Amino acid sequence: MTILSLPLQNHLFSSTALPKPRRFPLCATKVRMSLQESAPSIAVVGVTGAVGQEFLSVLSDRDFPYRSIKMLASKRSAGRRFTFEEKEYVVEELTPESFDGVDIALFSAGGSISREFGPIAVDRGTIVVDNSSAFRMDEKVPLVIPEVNPEAMEGIKLGMGKGALIANPNCSTIICLMAATPLHRRAKVLRMVVSTYQAASGAGAAAMEELEQQTREVLEGRPPTCKIFKEQYAFNLFSHNASILSNGYNEEEMKMVKETRKIWNDKDVKVTATCIRVPVMRAHAESVNLQFEKPLDEDTARDILKNAPGVVVIDDRAANHFPTPLEVSNRDDVAVGRIRRDLSQDGNQGLDIFVCGDQIRKGAALNAVQIAEMLL
Amino acid sequence: MTILSLPLQNHLFSSTALPKPRRFPLCATKVRMSLQESAPSIAVVGVTGAVGQEFLSVLSDRDFPYRSIKMLASKRSAGRRFTFEEKEYVVEELTPESFDGVDIALFSAGGSISREFGPIAVDRGTIVVDNSSAFRMDEKVPLVIPEVNPEAMEGIKLGMGKGALIANPNCSTIICLMAATPLHRRAKVLRMVVSTYQAASGAGAAAMEELEQQTREVLEGRPPTCKIFKEQYAFNLFSHNASILSNGYNEEEMKMVKETRKIWNDKDVKVTATCIRVPVMRAHAESVNLQFEKPLDEDTARDILKNAPGVVVIDDRAANHFPTPLEVSNRDDVAVGRIRRDLSQDGNQGLDIFVCGDQIRKGAALNAVQIAEMLL
Repeated sequence: MTILSLPLQNHLFSSTALPKPRRFPLCATKVRMSLQESAPSIAVVGVTGAVGQEFLSVLSDRDFPYRSIKMLASKRSAGRRFTFEEKEYVVEELTPESFDGVDIALFSAGGSISREFGPIAVDRGTIVVDNSSAFRMDEKVPLVIPEVNPEAMEGIKLGMGKGALIANPNCSTIICLMAATPLHRRAKVLRMVVSTYQAASGAGAAAMEELEQQTREVLEGRPPTCKIFKEQYAFNLFSHNASILSNGYNEEEMKMVKETRKIWNDKDVKVTATCIRVPVMRAHAESVNLQFEKPLDEDTARDILKNAPGVVVIDDRAANHFPTPLEVSNRDDVAVGRIRRDLSQDGNQGLDIFVCGDQIRKGAALNAVQIAEMLL
Repeated sequence: MTILSLPLQNHLFSSTALPKPRRFPLCATKVRMSLQESAPSIAVVGVTGAVGQEFLSVLSDRDFPYRSIKMLASKRSAGRRFTFEEKEYVVEELTPESFDGVDIALFSAGGSISREFGPIAVDRGTIVVDNSSAFRMDEKVPLVIPEVNPEAMEGIKLGMGKGALIANPNCSTIICLMAATPLHRRAKVLRMVVSTYQAASGAGAAAMEELEQQTREVLEGRPPTCKIFKEQYAFNLFSHNASILSNGYNEEEMKMVKETRKIWNDKDVKVTATCIRVPVMRAHAESVNLQFEKPLDEDTARDILKNAPGVVVIDDRAANHFPTPLEVSNRDDVAVGRIRRDLSQDGNQGLDIFVCGDQIRKGAALNAVQIAEMLL
């Protein structure tokens, strides 16, 4: 169990009031005493994006060992210079040759880049940890949350000169399953009804900027500028902008349905989701209703979650203090609260929980780096 | 069926960008040619609050007939002057004598004022429409949504000189049941799982001001001022601030559970709710998962909702256009979209829907005035 160390008041008046992705100058928080010759060489694909930036923060925060690191992005960003861990880097244009000699590549540059360059990297012997949805449902590609299904990584080993693809799940799926899996292991989830409260960061740094800019405009009485989203985002919320499929679900929702089945290796688990974008910067919240095969009372559930890796329980009924997106922003742990017996189900067959997790961190960059750590 | 007449783009760049309660000068939109001598005398209790103000707007918008109207509030607000329908009024302090000669009183001044003055008004022959939760679960008090259970009003008649109490349901309950009831009538709802996205207005005008002020402060890099809510509200969300009960539900959630049973006159309907406050000004959204006794396919459900009074269907999958809080702000109709078969239930036994409604209007003032109209 991990406990968030800061009391509530500190969060209210801290720099997390408007949490944003850290830009590269901020990444230079640590200095490596020496680069490790035996450590892997790394590439970050999409390094100028919100998740790309967070890859660097997480690598640094976790002292991930590397002997070299390539900063890769589109032609448009190539040539940009920045300092990371007191060393100067130039952003290079992504080409097939970029992967020569690269052991591990962390991809977060969108599905089309992953589809084009992922297989190229694998052919050159690179192990790709891909944050896009391009390969998630590919039967041959493991879809991994290290705390949930580490066994899916079996057979993938670094240093054999063999490339491979590993997929990072969707951010909403990761945050939901971090909390639901420990309960699933005990009581088997039969059905899950999820409603999400998703942050701007899931649509990238430009969406975060749009939310901030629109909010300023609305407060000044000016018309809000809508570029990324067609709906006004400031002081509003809307159904997730992913395309709607023929069954009426949007792609984000179907990711939660399908990825849960694959990650839990349970084709029968029933999941429905309604994904909504709310005017919050960088952490998702999810209201999750669970139906179990075996009874599970709320006290046992709370104890299980308190002991779950990567999960923190914030469930103070007396103080009415439960997880908030702000409180988990820039933090690794997924927070769970509002743990209670579902009155609409018989006995202890169901629970309601409320989950918050940093979308950029555990929802994307941290999970990918944890996958890479499993290769070491 | 009602169709929202404004295209999306107009909403984005209209004055609804930061929807607020209308203050009294704005209420003076209409002029009565003459006060009707045969019409009831009215009192508005809590006239200076967000809902009190909206009572006036709605009375004016709907040309509600009255021969006189008393503006009542606490001692603190007494003496304030304002113009309504081109007539000048002075806010009077609420006392037992306030109700002498009053036929209908619209209350929205909190539960303790209702508990104290509601019975006093009834004793003096006034019919009270109470927006607080004070009497909602009282067996002798009808709990009414006019489109849903008008039959509950039977036996209450104006002009008999007999006072009575009628309760206005909780805003989240009203908005949910406006959409769920037409489907319930056709297929019988067995179970409902609701997650709410609730606006500032539910906590009053001061909460709306707090959201705006905090947002300005955060954008300016200053610490947000927390008075109404203990959590930062700007760019954040949190579990509803209502007290948590021993079963782990908060009072707002239990209102949805219990009021649904009373309004539907169905003690067996199973409801669970998770109520969350989001940084939106004045309209609530709700993600509602429904389980039916009889099969109900999504096309039939959509047709039923299109024909339901007070409901508008916004369900354009191709354009990814669904209800938003902003689009329903200052509007009477509750909007429903994302109507789809629930993949986690067999056949057509379940649906997911997404509902938005103006919290101050249909969630409070409009519903109360509609109840009063049933008395005429």
